Amino acid sequence: MQIIDGSVTVSKGFSANGVACGIKKRKKDMALVVSEVQCSFAGSFTTNLVKAAPVLWDQKLVASQDHVKAIVINSGNANACTAEQGLKDTEATAAYAGSVLGCKAEEVLVCSTGVIGVPLPMDKVKEGIELCSKELSTSREASGEAALAICTTDTFKKEVAVSVQIEGRTVHIGGMAKGSGMIHPNMATMLSFITTDAAIGKQTLQALLGSSIVDTYNMISVDGDTSTNDTVLVLANGMSGTTMLGPDHPEWETFTQAFLYVHTELAKAIVRDGEGAGKFLEVKVTGAKDKQTAQTLARSVITSNLVKTAFFGSDANWGRILCAMGYSGADFNPSALNLSFSSAKGTIQVVENGVPLAFDEHLAKGILMEREITTLAQLKDGNGEGTAWGCDLSYEYVRINGDYRS
Amino acid sequence: MQIIDGSVTVSKGFSANGVACGIKKRKKDMALVVSEVQCSFAGSFTTNLVKAAPVLWDQKLVASQDHVKAIVINSGNANACTAEQGLKDTEATAAYAGSVLGCKAEEVLVCSTGVIGVPLPMDKVKEGIELCSKELSTSREASGEAALAICTTDTFKKEVAVSVQIEGRTVHIGGMAKGSGMIHPNMATMLSFITTDAAIGKQTLQALLGSSIVDTYNMISVDGDTSTNDTVLVLANGMSGTTMLGPDHPEWETFTQAFLYVHTELAKAIVRDGEGAGKFLEVKVTGAKDKQTAQTLARSVITSNLVKTAFFGSDANWGRILCAMGYSGADFNPSALNLSFSSAKGTIQVVENGVPLAFDEHLAKGILMEREITTLAQLKDGNGEGTAWGCDLSYEYVRINGDYRS
Repeated sequence: MQIIDGSVTVSKGFSANGVACGIKKRKKDMALVVSEVQCSFAGSFTTNLVKAAPVLWDQKLVASQDHVKAIVINSGNANACTAEQGLKDTEATAAYAGSVLGCKAEEVLVCSTGVIGVPLPMDKVKEGIELCSKELSTSREASGEAALAICTTDTFKKEVAVSVQIEGRTVHIGGMAKGSGMIHPNMATMLSFITTDAAIGKQTLQALLGSSIVDTYNMISVDGDTSTNDTVLVLANGMSGTTMLGPDHPEWETFTQAFLYVHTELAKAIVRDGEGAGKFLEVKVTGAKDKQTAQTLARSVITSNLVKTAFFGSDANWGRILCAMGYSGADFNPSALNLSFSSAKGTIQVVENGVPLAFDEHLAKGILMEREITTLAQLKDGNGEGTAWGCDLSYEYVRINGDYRS
Repeated sequence: MQIIDGSVTVSKGFSANGVACGIKKRKKDMALVVSEVQCSFAGSFTTNLVKAAPVLWDQKLVASQDHVKAIVINSGNANACTAEQGLKDTEATAAYAGSVLGCKAEEVLVCSTGVIGVPLPMDKVKEGIELCSKELSTSREASGEAALAICTTDTFKKEVAVSVQIEGRTVHIGGMAKGSGMIHPNMATMLSFITTDAAIGKQTLQALLGSSIVDTYNMISVDGDTSTNDTVLVLANGMSGTTMLGPDHPEWETFTQAFLYVHTELAKAIVRDGEGAGKFLEVKVTGAKDKQTAQTLARSVITSNLVKTAFFGSDANWGRILCAMGYSGADFNPSALNLSFSSAKGTIQVVENGVPLAFDEHLAKGILMEREITTLAQLKDGNGEGTAWGCDLSYEYVRINGDYRS
């Protein structure tokens, strides 16, 4: 696998663009990702009972359509909690994009992110689609414009791209994402878009996406709130020219590893850019009785406000970690736990076989002052492993989310 | 029901005291609650898999003993994550208190709160028990000393007492609690202690406590972290002189209402004093399909960091409330939701039948600037009602929990 510069346009036959159409003040707010040919596709969506209109539209397409050709994404307005009008607006968005791009409405996936409860300004949306479509390009720059246009409170754009060799041909996977930051009045949402020129059937792609989600987006947390708009979409147009990929293909593993890598890096980029985040935290649990247990434990630690504030304060507060593992609902033997913290400054073990160790507070502080910290919790219940990623809880988080339209 | 000044010593035959024995620097850290005669008793404990030694001891007594006579509570050290030594220390604490008070170790419940992972200083504990026992008193002042001694980061003591008339006799219920604040390095724990001179059997009392927990302590949240030491204990010594109370007693309802009132007020006092809390939040859900659904929805809202920071910023951010209801896992129809905010400054409705209303932002801000705010979410799915209480998420929370031993 080779890591390359770029995102959604690295895959053959995909063009993109991002423009400003006035939904937000001045900033870019409309993006298009378009394939030259029809694509197999897959989607994964928020589990929130309250789903935004575009989520409902995309879920309908995943359930009923074999192919799509494009994704329209607007930022600045989530089109959530907008009742019947919201559904009509999403459908009109897809229809308008279809007419501009020369395809059916049902071949256009739609995503929105931004304010909740305000109707989409459809005149601006249409203007944006038209403007955006005029400069669609397969260039690196065009994908960068799209990656910018989907951002809300993100402080940097999130792009990942790789290539792998399959059947002697180069297969690309590229993706862009926006963060799960939520801000006034109701910016929300994690969005992630992946293109690939691999040849892969819709069911296979959906299954692969489903299993990738479990180890990537589902293992990150900024603040434990699940938005109304969270969406991950994958388009595969087959233009690399390989035969169809699937579990029986001899190089399937090569593809799935690369696919997982792209999702993992996008997920990690999202928490790195979590609202108010000063530190990137990795929590790894090994020796759990199974993978699910390990993941539940790791996720409970990364979600704990008390753990997050302790890391903000560079406090080797291992008791809070053990406490968060304890209330996770997962079963484990605390009296066999080894616990350690690592960063660029070194590693320090603080618990052995469930018993606190006397440790060098000065060294611990130094390790925890770093911006990237790994917590390793080793159990002796089995071979289950799981890793979760998150960020600290800072004054800045409270400021961003407490201050209203200021 | 009459609300009276006092706490654990309002009930006939109960004495208490609180002293400083040096586990904490200078502050009171040891309390005793003692009954003149043997008591029926009940306990409810943390669901955290990682349980402190005193929790394990108390659970054993609840499972095996018919009566107890006393509770020993120390603050400043949680005796949690202290392995075998911790269990021995708790047992020694009970045994020592028993020898001083003239009863068996198995008649003494033990609670600890404070630092995790540090062995109990047993010499100080013994000294504290001895000192405390010398000035045991049934006075109002003595119960106040006990209520102070169980505090950690609490900014005020939490006491509630009531009396009811049953069979023409006065029956008392009094309680004290400490907050769920958690602070450096690992102060933790919600503790609540109730005495009553009602005559009530152990099984009946345990069942009543179980059903009261559901509507009180389980409906409050400061930061979503469940401690290793959470404990609620009730002692009933029968000295009011009534016949045995139970579901068949004609005045059972009188007693259970008063009992619930005491737990409710203690639970509310705990969140009022949540770490860094500037506002007291009540979230009431009505019209849910059943009570459990209503409670799940209310609890999800009160636990959301985004909702809590919005209240901190006096932001009428109803989208976050709907979002938190949506990811609660509970089933409801969002398109029938009416949502409003109330405080001393008035009431404002922001959503009707799932559709956002244009509302007066200035009025909303004024209502939300108050220190006590009720959010009412009215559904049309049934008759289920539930109320949860919590506090805002402030800079102060981050400061308290991020700063280490400073």
